[in-house]
Amino acid sequence: MQVFIGVDLGGTNLRAAAVDETGRILGRSRLETHAAEGLEAVLARIASAARQAASDAGVRMEDVAACCVGSPGPLDAATGVVLFTPNLPGWKNVPVAARMTEALGVRTFLENDANSAGWGEFWRGAGRGSTDMVICTLGTGVGGSVILRGRLHRGRDQMAGHLGHIILVPDGRPCGCGATGCLEQYCSAKAVAREAREATRAGEDTGLARLDPDGITAKAVYEAAVAGSQYCRELIERTGRYLGLGIATAVNVLDPQVAVIAGGMLEAGEMLLAPCRKAARENALAPADERVKIVPAELGGDAGVIGAAGLAMRRSGGEEA
Amino acid sequence: MQVFIGVDLGGTNLRAAAVDETGRILGRSRLETHAAEGLEAVLARIASAARQAASDAGVRMEDVAACCVGSPGPLDAATGVVLFTPNLPGWKNVPVAARMTEALGVRTFLENDANSAGWGEFWRGAGRGSTDMVICTLGTGVGGSVILRGRLHRGRDQMAGHLGHIILVPDGRPCGCGATGCLEQYCSAKAVAREAREATRAGEDTGLARLDPDGITAKAVYEAAVAGSQYCRELIERTGRYLGLGIATAVNVLDPQVAVIAGGMLEAGEMLLAPCRKAARENALAPADERVKIVPAELGGDAGVIGAAGLAMRRSGGEEA
Repeated sequence: MQVFIGVDLGGTNLRAAAVDETGRILGRSRLETHAAEGLEAVLARIASAARQAASDAGVRMEDVAACCVGSPGPLDAATGVVLFTPNLPGWKNVPVAARMTEALGVRTFLENDANSAGWGEFWRGAGRGSTDMVICTLGTGVGGSVILRGRLHRGRDQMAGHLGHIILVPDGRPCGCGATGCLEQYCSAKAVAREAREATRAGEDTGLARLDPDGITAKAVYEAAVAGSQYCRELIERTGRYLGLGIATAVNVLDPQVAVIAGGMLEAGEMLLAPCRKAARENALAPADERVKIVPAELGGDAGVIGAAGLAMRRSGGEEA
Repeated sequence: MQVFIGVDLGGTNLRAAAVDETGRILGRSRLETHAAEGLEAVLARIASAARQAASDAGVRMEDVAACCVGSPGPLDAATGVVLFTPNLPGWKNVPVAARMTEALGVRTFLENDANSAGWGEFWRGAGRGSTDMVICTLGTGVGGSVILRGRLHRGRDQMAGHLGHIILVPDGRPCGCGATGCLEQYCSAKAVAREAREATRAGEDTGLARLDPDGITAKAVYEAAVAGSQYCRELIERTGRYLGLGIATAVNVLDPQVAVIAGGMLEAGEMLLAPCRKAARENALAPADERVKIVPAELGGDAGVIGAAGLAMRRSGGEEA
């Protein structure tokens, strides 16, 4: 049995798992990132998390075949360098793969976090058995990844896969990326919470008035919808519909077999997915619209570590992932 | 020297060219399709066009290495069967590749027309030297094609590449495909002509009032813009801007090196391309927006026949195209 370690580096949390070649998790660890402590402290903590995951699996680090760190980007997966990243202050041109290879004594690769999670779902989750898959992860932003003919499609500049930045509404809401109308501004958990918050503040009957407006989350919106708030139900349905329009665009351009929806917003289940499927079906070209399956992610918060471990396996085996 | 024949089958015209392995045209032919005469008549005419192109090049048909027919779809490029096609009445499950191989005595392949034209620009036109390219052809509709890592991206169902059906405006103009708000409804020559026609009929100062409204074309809109019509200039600029938003989406999802704009609308030149580039740059993620070149097509009406010949070369050589 070979063991691989996948690390999922976030601005707040840092997770790692030791995974076998079938994608089974043998051991895990979780630390806080403490990004404010700076680069060296975070690098040391990544190494710690990897060692703890190995230890939790009862595996010595020298018996680990390879590691991969899934990190926010932009980054260069080929050279293993994080160019910079808004969530980790002080990170600029950091050779994460080389530093971790040195620190752990195990060959370590680097991949962007959205691709790691996408690869996890492709390898062992909702996309398994497919060759062409897209994924949208609805969180603070909307992460995306594109897998074509069994390989990550990174693009010429490693800037592909950004389904969250499909331009959905011309002259629409301003996005952090500098564009306007990005899908992320209509379908992320943050966008849903913000819309509900503003409506509540404006005195609309959202069913959320008893909450501190600042504390309104996408989860609270979903709970209010279940409790009978028509506003919240319609907001979630509209979100699903926008998501379906974005998926229709991805289907018309890429024609994948599977579109996976991931992230915290999934808690809304069919209230979100049914209008998403309907909008995608109505707006994608036949017969692609009949064949593409729009399905919820299956690995939850483990997608990133499993996917990173899978990429470590694939890339250490000399295969392009 | 090897010779390949590329055929570009349209609803109105049928063109063929004999092309050498460097993409140079050695001979050509052009016939009317006469689609109304039905399947067998059109098939016979495709064979005629191929023979005439060979003859024009001074090459015997038995010395032609391979042919490829670029056809409207949907079709199955792998089996060489046109499933059906709105512009050619009576075409249903037609094994074009097999029929032409038999009629010509030369191995013949089938590809959709948008991919043939895309491959032409990729191989010998505005995309040459790149590995990742998208193309939008602004005509009656908006044809699209996607080439990734040096290969056509056809998708699982051979339904990929439809950049004309990027959903650009939620609840926008109805599209012939059944969706609403497709890029095609904002950026095709037909859409531009229709918008100008409706405005003229409604009494707006379009500078086109002296024309029969039914005769207003995209070309007339461009000419009026050059002659000083502010309405027409703004319409072309708005068209370019919409096109740029669609390109931004393609860039954010695919990260190509080159986006090629083709078709009759190109006559508007920088009046169309400058706002297109601006919108793409403002809405695509950096650094992809700096690297992707948005360029006019170079092969004009020859892209389809050159591309089909190139695909014949590639596929007869056993390479996947």
